[in-house]
Amino acid sequence: MTTNTTITQQINDVDIEAIADLAETIQTDPEVAATTWKANVVWNGGFASETNVRDFAPVASDEPISLGGSDTAANPVEQLLGALGNCLAVGYAANATGLGIEINDLSIDLEGDLDLHTFMGLNPNGNAGYDAIRVSVALDSDATPEKLTQLHQQVVGTSPVGHTLGRAVPVQIDLA
Amino acid sequence: MTTNTTITQQINDVDIEAIADLAETIQTDPEVAATTWKANVVWNGGFASETNVRDFAPVASDEPISLGGSDTAANPVEQLLGALGNCLAVGYAANATGLGIEINDLSIDLEGDLDLHTFMGLNPNGNAGYDAIRVSVALDSDATPEKLTQLHQQVVGTSPVGHTLGRAVPVQIDLA
Repeated sequence: MTTNTTITQQINDVDIEAIADLAETIQTDPEVAATTWKANVVWNGGFASETNVRDFAPVASDEPISLGGSDTAANPVEQLLGALGNCLAVGYAANATGLGIEINDLSIDLEGDLDLHTFMGLNPNGNAGYDAIRVSVALDSDATPEKLTQLHQQVVGTSPVGHTLGRAVPVQIDLA
Repeated sequence: MTTNTTITQQINDVDIEAIADLAETIQTDPEVAATTWKANVVWNGGFASETNVRDFAPVASDEPISLGGSDTAANPVEQLLGALGNCLAVGYAANATGLGIEINDLSIDLEGDLDLHTFMGLNPNGNAGYDAIRVSVALDSDATPEKLTQLHQQVVGTSPVGHTLGRAVPVQIDLA
């Protein structure tokens, strides 16, 4: 048992012990699972702004020249795709470790289709957001195809950002 | 007319000319509005990964220690909130400029509630994503409350990330 735990810890550099501890805590006290996450965004003029999360360095945001920005950073809809990709990466690493699957390499390509009419004010009541998002996951592993399919289904079924995008979330925006 | 254009251009450092050009192009050729945005995410071991967009420097992602990460960067669900805030910042800057409203300062606080049971594999078929997202916008401007309400409604009605979160988007995730 101790040997198994040690081996599991070493797979994918994932601290499986921390996750097991959290799962145990949540099962004892379900309220621990009720989390609230925060971010602050400060406008820097034009279409430039920055995201502040906890004590981390600000992350820049801008729009391409063609959309009226100064093109100094990824734009918000690209950041959204990045958030989904990073979430899936965590999911693959966590679930692979739980299943005893070693990941050699993992690269995730994301793309989304967005019609600019609504954003540009040319289609009142239209959809300004992504109409569809497609993700292609390149996962290099020696695990069997069956194991990898099981891994994939677990990841898709438990992805916080994936579920947020796939469902209609109540978003309340108040002008203070 | 030329004078007006010049004045408008100087408000909020927004290149309103570029936006007007794009709107005109889209009205002539609607296909121009059909855009596809991309990102790539590379896993770096454990729960660390990075987002790559066009030629910009990679942006780091990680999870807090309590979730099994090494806490070196904002996590994906925080990045998602940041993407929404940055999108709204662009929306306020663009629409304010169109309405002739000068923005002195703009800061946006975002938070979202997320129950960890599903992510932790403790609630099969549950919602792993945000149950609700709340945004508080602090906008400092000398414009009238009526004008600011109009601005706010325009922004909320045309936000690409806001609409993406507020609607169920088809997300197709394929293991290559």
